[in-house]
Amino acid sequence: MTSRGRVRTSSNSLDPNEDPVSGLERVMSNSNLEQMARQRRRHEEELLFSRQIEESDRTDSHEALSARYESLNYEVSENRLYRDAEKKPSHQLTLWRISRNRWFVCFLIGVFTGLVAAFIDIMVHYSKDIKFNWILKYLISKCGEEQRGTTAGCMWTVMIAWIGYNCVLVTIAAILVIYVAPIAGGSGIPQIKCYLNGIAIPEVVRLKTLVSKAIGVACSVGGGLCAGKEGPMIHSGAAVGAGVSQGKSYSLGIDFGVFREFRNDRERRDFVSAGAAAGVAAAFGAPIGGVLFSLEEGASFWNQNLTWRMFFSAMISSFTVNWILSWFNGRSGWLSWTGLANFGIFENKDYNIWEIPLFLLIGVIGGCLGALFNYLNTRLTEFRKKYVSSKFGRLFECLLVAAVSGFLAFLTIFAIDDCQPIGANPTATSTQINQMWCKKGEYSAVASLFFQNPEESVKSLFHSPINSFGVMTLVIFGIEYFLLTLWTFGISVPSGVFIPAILTGAAWGRLFGILVERLFPSVTGIDPGKYALAGAAAQLGGVVRMTISLTAIIMEATKDITFGLPIMLVLMVTKWVGDMFNEGLYDSHIDLAEVPILGWNPPKMSRNILADRVMRKDVVALERRERVSRIVEILRSTLHHGFPVVDRIEESPYESLPDYGRLKGYILRSQLFKLLENRIFEEEGTSSNALPNDFYECQDDDDQMKSLNDLGLTQYDESCWLDIEPYMHPHPHRVPLNTSLPFIFRLFRGLGLRYLFVVNDDNHLRGVITRKDVARFRERRRNHEYHVDELYISES
Amino acid sequence: MTSRGRVRTSSNSLDPNEDPVSGLERVMSNSNLEQMARQRRRHEEELLFSRQIEESDRTDSHEALSARYESLNYEVSENRLYRDAEKKPSHQLTLWRISRNRWFVCFLIGVFTGLVAAFIDIMVHYSKDIKFNWILKYLISKCGEEQRGTTAGCMWTVMIAWIGYNCVLVTIAAILVIYVAPIAGGSGIPQIKCYLNGIAIPEVVRLKTLVSKAIGVACSVGGGLCAGKEGPMIHSGAAVGAGVSQGKSYSLGIDFGVFREFRNDRERRDFVSAGAAAGVAAAFGAPIGGVLFSLEEGASFWNQNLTWRMFFSAMISSFTVNWILSWFNGRSGWLSWTGLANFGIFENKDYNIWEIPLFLLIGVIGGCLGALFNYLNTRLTEFRKKYVSSKFGRLFECLLVAAVSGFLAFLTIFAIDDCQPIGANPTATSTQINQMWCKKGEYSAVASLFFQNPEESVKSLFHSPINSFGVMTLVIFGIEYFLLTLWTFGISVPSGVFIPAILTGAAWGRLFGILVERLFPSVTGIDPGKYALAGAAAQLGGVVRMTISLTAIIMEATKDITFGLPIMLVLMVTKWVGDMFNEGLYDSHIDLAEVPILGWNPPKMSRNILADRVMRKDVVALERRERVSRIVEILRSTLHHGFPVVDRIEESPYESLPDYGRLKGYILRSQLFKLLENRIFEEEGTSSNALPNDFYECQDDDDQMKSLNDLGLTQYDESCWLDIEPYMHPHPHRVPLNTSLPFIFRLFRGLGLRYLFVVNDDNHLRGVITRKDVARFRERRRNHEYHVDELYISES
Repeated sequence: MTSRGRVRTSSNSLDPNEDPVSGLERVMSNSNLEQMARQRRRHEEELLFSRQIEESDRTDSHEALSARYESLNYEVSENRLYRDAEKKPSHQLTLWRISRNRWFVCFLIGVFTGLVAAFIDIMVHYSKDIKFNWILKYLISKCGEEQRGTTAGCMWTVMIAWIGYNCVLVTIAAILVIYVAPIAGGSGIPQIKCYLNGIAIPEVVRLKTLVSKAIGVACSVGGGLCAGKEGPMIHSGAAVGAGVSQGKSYSLGIDFGVFREFRNDRERRDFVSAGAAAGVAAAFGAPIGGVLFSLEEGASFWNQNLTWRMFFSAMISSFTVNWILSWFNGRSGWLSWTGLANFGIFENKDYNIWEIPLFLLIGVIGGCLGALFNYLNTRLTEFRKKYVSSKFGRLFECLLVAAVSGFLAFLTIFAIDDCQPIGANPTATSTQINQMWCKKGEYSAVASLFFQNPEESVKSLFHSPINSFGVMTLVIFGIEYFLLTLWTFGISVPSGVFIPAILTGAAWGRLFGILVERLFPSVTGIDPGKYALAGAAAQLGGVVRMTISLTAIIMEATKDITFGLPIMLVLMVTKWVGDMFNEGLYDSHIDLAEVPILGWNPPKMSRNILADRVMRKDVVALERRERVSRIVEILRSTLHHGFPVVDRIEESPYESLPDYGRLKGYILRSQLFKLLENRIFEEEGTSSNALPNDFYECQDDDDQMKSLNDLGLTQYDESCWLDIEPYMHPHPHRVPLNTSLPFIFRLFRGLGLRYLFVVNDDNHLRGVITRKDVARFRERRRNHEYHVDELYISES
Repeated sequence: MTSRGRVRTSSNSLDPNEDPVSGLERVMSNSNLEQMARQRRRHEEELLFSRQIEESDRTDSHEALSARYESLNYEVSENRLYRDAEKKPSHQLTLWRISRNRWFVCFLIGVFTGLVAAFIDIMVHYSKDIKFNWILKYLISKCGEEQRGTTAGCMWTVMIAWIGYNCVLVTIAAILVIYVAPIAGGSGIPQIKCYLNGIAIPEVVRLKTLVSKAIGVACSVGGGLCAGKEGPMIHSGAAVGAGVSQGKSYSLGIDFGVFREFRNDRERRDFVSAGAAAGVAAAFGAPIGGVLFSLEEGASFWNQNLTWRMFFSAMISSFTVNWILSWFNGRSGWLSWTGLANFGIFENKDYNIWEIPLFLLIGVIGGCLGALFNYLNTRLTEFRKKYVSSKFGRLFECLLVAAVSGFLAFLTIFAIDDCQPIGANPTATSTQINQMWCKKGEYSAVASLFFQNPEESVKSLFHSPINSFGVMTLVIFGIEYFLLTLWTFGISVPSGVFIPAILTGAAWGRLFGILVERLFPSVTGIDPGKYALAGAAAQLGGVVRMTISLTAIIMEATKDITFGLPIMLVLMVTKWVGDMFNEGLYDSHIDLAEVPILGWNPPKMSRNILADRVMRKDVVALERRERVSRIVEILRSTLHHGFPVVDRIEESPYESLPDYGRLKGYILRSQLFKLLENRIFEEEGTSSNALPNDFYECQDDDDQMKSLNDLGLTQYDESCWLDIEPYMHPHPHRVPLNTSLPFIFRLFRGLGLRYLFVVNDDNHLRGVITRKDVARFRERRRNHEYHVDELYISES
């Protein structure tokens, strides 16, 4: 118990939660002086201890949380209008309509997410078509089929054309991100994770973000970057979820006037989680993986109905993509066609129990490599934040990455002489393109990796026969891809990390398989493909640290369940090993963005951090009936998004803050605004206008956040009274001053709170706790001991 | 707002949550008489409305909740000992040890659950072996290979031997259930569901329950009942989870002295959920399905760490079973062996988009049949509860079911002439046994269904070529299995409903496939097997109404993902259709058992039911320092499991209950008991004994619930004082009197509460809300309108 509580007598009463009178009364009634002395001693010890905690915690708080992120408003304001709504006969119909519309919206989310994903897929396909069948074919055919070295000059032309084409596409992607929707950069998964965690990330689910993301990712993948389209597809799905469910678009300024009942943070968040699940389902053909992804990365509690709707969206989205792609590939309607499996079908599914240790070893390697990746990428992002902040600089970096990626591909093909006879590998696309510097009847294995879309390269690495790739090819390819991915993740284009990590892992996993085969030549049935799969899982798991959803995704993307057990094992070991070094890539980026995300569990060693230390004391409260002028003044002078309502406020002459009475409720800024806008004022003799009944659902969206001046309040208006009581939430969550941080944390996490009020023993308001106040206490490990660090809240 | 609150002035003040003084004060300060009048009018309207609600609700409350079920104690008692524990240097080590032990225990849970499941599997295998290779073979060979009818007399002998053998096994199962562990009867899933929901079901996870369940289910399945071993395996897994994590057994009276840190309801519930997941994983080879099962049926919130450990247990358990079974089948170590797929491997995986409407139709049929099944089984269970309650009656019913099941099988084989040429169906076991009354070179398709274990019949129905079973065979088999399952589920043997429902559904699904093939003879590639799979999913889904976990389970049990989408569709439609008629089988049985389970969402139309109507007012509170004699008296005279602590208690001369002061904390009955047991008393001049530091974790287990008399408290002891304050939980959850039921519901569901205290505006204790008080408000639909029914709480 610290002495920082706003209880006036906390430092000399026995219990900060207690008024001096009742404390005295209690001591008197017990008439036990010795006990009193003992308790005081104990209290002093506690004070000393808590000061020690504070001091030790403050030493390392160079980290910060940004004050600009607000919580989503997940709680219903159960005011009188809300309660009265239930008494109307039409309410039964409303309940039915809401329930029906939820399913309908989820259906639409599935369809639209599927369409967006199919659009991205098809764009990438055509982009590849142009590159390979137009630029490469034309130029290579002009250069003739000569031997390595002799046509170097001609090859330079090919390379420049290739890099030029890539740079054009990457420029489009970069311009969309830098100038249209900055939030569309990167994978999008960290942002969606934060949103589902309950944080309002600005613009994350807008239409312009969706458009920039979808076109941008098609360009960046088509432009040959080491980037995946899966993360952006998930982000797109989330944006579709928000857009469809609101029935309007800020970006276009259109309002279709439908689904008004879903225009609040609570419903929107549910639909966004459905959209994210649909995005995963579309990206990997993995509906169950999608649902698990939304749950693992986002939802803090498992609601069966919501999960079921998420599942429905995911399924519809998966259906839509499969249908379109089967049609696009000339296999109309054949939904079990193996070409729809994103990672291809494993023919050889044998594995034996003695291979388990090998899989474990792959897990360890993946954990270490993933941790290394995260460490380097985090450092690089910090560097970028400091030195590459101008718009032009960011654009230039994108172009540089595109050019270097293209150049390295050609350089590698030139440098490594891995020519394979055409036909030996049925999975390779052994066209003229891949011949490059190889002899007639042969193709370059390196070119077959670099000159196709990343997803097809994954399939090659998984399913090619054992000798399809030389050892050197895999080593160089793996290292290059690792480094390029490291550089690419974080530049200003939409780019996911899934496929690049899978490719890297598949390369070293395949290498691992080849080594095993050479070490144990007597054992038959060693297929490097399954080690490539294990390596891919390990590398990806090491980077993103997902477990259950990743297992499901990989299983669904290979349409196969046989390798389920080894993949789980690999991912489990990977996470253990990786977590010893640092946290997952998404979490690192969230920390860098200073977002007040709440983890799964309260920080360890925080039992003695009490509410009076967690809370803010500079709370601004209202009485149940207030002058309009005071409300206007408060709205002008503070940025708070919600205000507690108390039964009396007494200005205290000795303290800077007034003394508040009993907690009666709370009201959102947006609600006050709406009351002012509708002139729900009272003066003697007049009765106020009635508000529309759906008012209780009004949210602090941007469109309601007009300037106060726009309301045109007159002097007369400001002299009126506003009766807040019917509009406030009458029973907000409250805790006493001696509540521990873990308890508060569980309230926030389990119920999705935005505000938690701290009251003293007489139910008088003493402070308020918001998500940021909870999130700034972080568990850290130093010298093999757990500590709680207290981050400061930066105003940027 | 009702006038039933214990606030003395609620009927004439403006707000039941307010004391008269402060209410007056407020009115004075506002000095607005008109407003006051308006508010009073509104208040009167509300009173009228809430009375209407109460009256309408009370009309249909013939349903009850039993008072004998207690909540699990999921909340930590954050008393001073608990907080002090963190200050010790050894606490860091404890944290580490707990974390390590959790994983170790989960590993053990996986291994032991796998062992139990493998034991059941192998027992069933040997039981079948005895039946088929010993009784049938021996007797049939004695009867000779003659034509139908001529050897009828001899066949009677076979049948009697067969039925006799079955009856012996079923008797063992029934005796185990009736005389050893009654809770081991049935599937066990409803009980586990309740346990995971947070209800302490007595003896549900004891060792004797586990032993009875495991041996019993082997006997009932081996004894030819229409019973599955999957539900009991899940229950066994849960019991293993509880047993291993506690490191002791009540049934044996052994205490290994390990894992003391897990001896509380919170940790135990987590391990039980891991055990249940491991059980599913072992039963179906479905680790992901297992995790989803535990989440869908049980956990109210998604904790990533817990889920991950559940996943680990499930994986280990699946590994263990696969390893043992691959060894048992002579394929040691070959974990990808297809024989490990519980439902076999589909060779023909084609399906096209035009088949989707057919799958939807199957879903509709499944929903209707499932609802019919649930309706009939519920009526039958009610009948059984009334008329078959004696132990002997129950045993007799089990034997009757066993005899009728055996007799019907023979009758059907005799009646239906469905002889197929041997070799046409590669999946059928075409041994001498199945020849029965068929010609040489032929086998009876009916016999091949009845004379093997249910799981093998499932495989036959899924994977046999199109003409393997006649239409009549499928019709009769389907109807018989439906009726026998109906009768079997609920008798006093361990018996699951999964496999019987799957068999029934596979039969009519296959029939559906044959009809489709006959209707569209021009379309090729119609495999009745996939319709059998869809039918199985539909029937099972219609009965148990699971969706996501069932999809995952079926996909994992067929080791195939291709049919994932159609299966999801089928299950979704099935649930929609089924839910129109009634609830799932498990929920019906839970309702019949009057268990206070909390659903996923608060009841609709309950916004105006407030805390003062939900709460109990007959609360017994303690002061922070109490005479031992009063505590003893309270423990003797009440059955409450927890007591609020207030700062003063004033006996009121006008009311039967005293007037309580401010809420200061609460203490469990078991904690008080432990304080008395350890003589933590005080009198002038003596200081109390220190309690062991892990005292805060002590739970109200049976072993701590010794009789008060055993404590041997002397007169002198009873005159001492007990200082409760250091041992109580100092900041219990509290809500004001005007809190709505949905708000309270979300608190209980989201945080797993056991007690919620209701305070008035001055933080004075006014009532307590337990799980039963919340659970008795149930949402019902009558005449297309939602209502809230209020169940009464029966003392039985």
